Amino acid sequence: MRATVLRDGKMVYRDDVPEPKPGPGEVLVAVQACGVCGSDLHFLKHGGRMIQRAGTMMKQLGGLGVDVNRDVFLGHEFSAEVIGAGPGTETRRAGTPVVSMPAVASAKGTQLVTYSNTNGGYAERMLLSAALVLPIRNGFDPKKAALTEPMAVGLHAVNKSNITHSESALVLGCGPVGIAVIAALRNRKVDTIVGADYSPKRRELAVAMGADMAVDPAQESPYDTTTPTVIFDVIGVPGILDDALRRSPHGSRIVVVGVCMEEDALHPFYGSAKEMNVQFVLTYTKGEFAEALRTLYDGEIDVTPMITGYVGLESVSDAFADLAEPERHCKILVTP
Amino acid sequence: MRATVLRDGKMVYRDDVPEPKPGPGEVLVAVQACGVCGSDLHFLKHGGRMIQRAGTMMKQLGGLGVDVNRDVFLGHEFSAEVIGAGPGTETRRAGTPVVSMPAVASAKGTQLVTYSNTNGGYAERMLLSAALVLPIRNGFDPKKAALTEPMAVGLHAVNKSNITHSESALVLGCGPVGIAVIAALRNRKVDTIVGADYSPKRRELAVAMGADMAVDPAQESPYDTTTPTVIFDVIGVPGILDDALRRSPHGSRIVVVGVCMEEDALHPFYGSAKEMNVQFVLTYTKGEFAEALRTLYDGEIDVTPMITGYVGLESVSDAFADLAEPERHCKILVTP
Repeated sequence: MRATVLRDGKMVYRDDVPEPKPGPGEVLVAVQACGVCGSDLHFLKHGGRMIQRAGTMMKQLGGLGVDVNRDVFLGHEFSAEVIGAGPGTETRRAGTPVVSMPAVASAKGTQLVTYSNTNGGYAERMLLSAALVLPIRNGFDPKKAALTEPMAVGLHAVNKSNITHSESALVLGCGPVGIAVIAALRNRKVDTIVGADYSPKRRELAVAMGADMAVDPAQESPYDTTTPTVIFDVIGVPGILDDALRRSPHGSRIVVVGVCMEEDALHPFYGSAKEMNVQFVLTYTKGEFAEALRTLYDGEIDVTPMITGYVGLESVSDAFADLAEPERHCKILVTP
Repeated sequence: MRATVLRDGKMVYRDDVPEPKPGPGEVLVAVQACGVCGSDLHFLKHGGRMIQRAGTMMKQLGGLGVDVNRDVFLGHEFSAEVIGAGPGTETRRAGTPVVSMPAVASAKGTQLVTYSNTNGGYAERMLLSAALVLPIRNGFDPKKAALTEPMAVGLHAVNKSNITHSESALVLGCGPVGIAVIAALRNRKVDTIVGADYSPKRRELAVAMGADMAVDPAQESPYDTTTPTVIFDVIGVPGILDDALRRSPHGSRIVVVGVCMEEDALHPFYGSAKEMNVQFVLTYTKGEFAEALRTLYDGEIDVTPMITGYVGLESVSDAFADLAEPERHCKILVTP
């Protein structure tokens, strides 16, 4: 089958990938749409050095079980259609549109659907876990459904922040996940939501998706625009956390959503003097994933403005290049 | 009157300090006992450079209002006896033993009783705020009562951790505040409490004050001894936070109690991958201060083993030197 894989720091199109064969508990699906995620860009941008560092760090934490010297399958923001299932496995009938958390539980343990040597969403077909597959309600656009995953990341970040209606949120970075955070905050009816991004296009999208306003950090300090009680760092580069500790109000909480792969320097004194709380987040629960899908169904959150382009499997590499341009794109979907 | 002040990075005894005069809302008291605090040692140890840096950082945060080029009064862990009060100020009758949070609220705003150019506990007499003075129940040893303040710091740290009975706590650093944290954890009936310190004497004290065990980090990793869900960093030097992020279990919380005055380096990736929470703490509420005093009264916490020495005002400088030796002392009280 056809797929695009990460090889030597580049996205490489292949038409000779062996057909995936579902084992017990697994479902074979045809990918309908798969979003290109910032974390994939991260991997690509930093090439081998970063993959190696991530590998070393992940190994210390138990390891991902991926061999970065072989082809790596990426793509974890997908919607798909059921084709069949493994031996003795009951699942939805063929043709049912589904989404799933990007993980496959098997006798060998749970493996991610992405950062894998065999299975990912930038492919014609892939394997999912029968236990995790969620059907898409009839008639709902599978392209929008593919955004369930990033919206779940935003929802989880907002849940972990314990933010209440009457609070004020500052969202640093209005890429797709920042936008997902803003949409989840709006859906929770948080009083004041301020986005911050250097890109005019992204600021526009932030307001379209629920921010009360979006500021350009080059023009004004986002910390002066509001008095945030919760600051979402959806940037994840060195220096942001220290700056947030220094500039945030007393007693506020910083939710670190952006994953910083590099060493960072900070002044704990600022955190101490103001009794700050820092909550790191990464993923979401099964319940949050289902809840994110529901908010899309029920029209509580409309992701239409976030989808800015489509490419085929042959052009994933171009999509990665395009996404480096924040003025042009938010979320590009790969449609095999 | 007599007092010991910080001058050019040294504790200097003076017998020519002007008598403090209580203003409206203020109470004049005679100091009975005043504990030497680690934060005072911090100031002394790092001398002018650190005072300057702290000054700069505090200025960015609003400032302490202290001129570090003049004599600085320290000492904020005190018990005292009422002498009189300012004009129109009602307070306890003369001779009443009291404690107080180290702050004086006046028309000019709230000022700390310590890091002040006029008022601190290493003195014969000092000024307190009538609104904050708490009487010591009759017969209770004022020397023990002087430990209300550090015990309140420990109680606050435990409160902010939201730790429950069934959790497991690791306390890194068993100096006086680490011991206060351990005592508060024990009083909350937390299932497992492990202390960690290089000093045998401190480990012994940790167990005496409520730890189930205390480990020597030079011999074994404290993270292997238990599976802590809450890690209290009561060390506050660079590197501890990064190490805690790397070695702590998934989803655990780090409470930063020790104040690190220097820049620190860490890998946010560890925090992200494990969805860690970092809560910085510094002080305590009015209610927690009163609650800390109550735990001493009611015998829930007996601080007797923590008090390891007494000195007069003339010897505060020696006490500071002695406290650098963890084998000899935990808490030294200055008794003017």
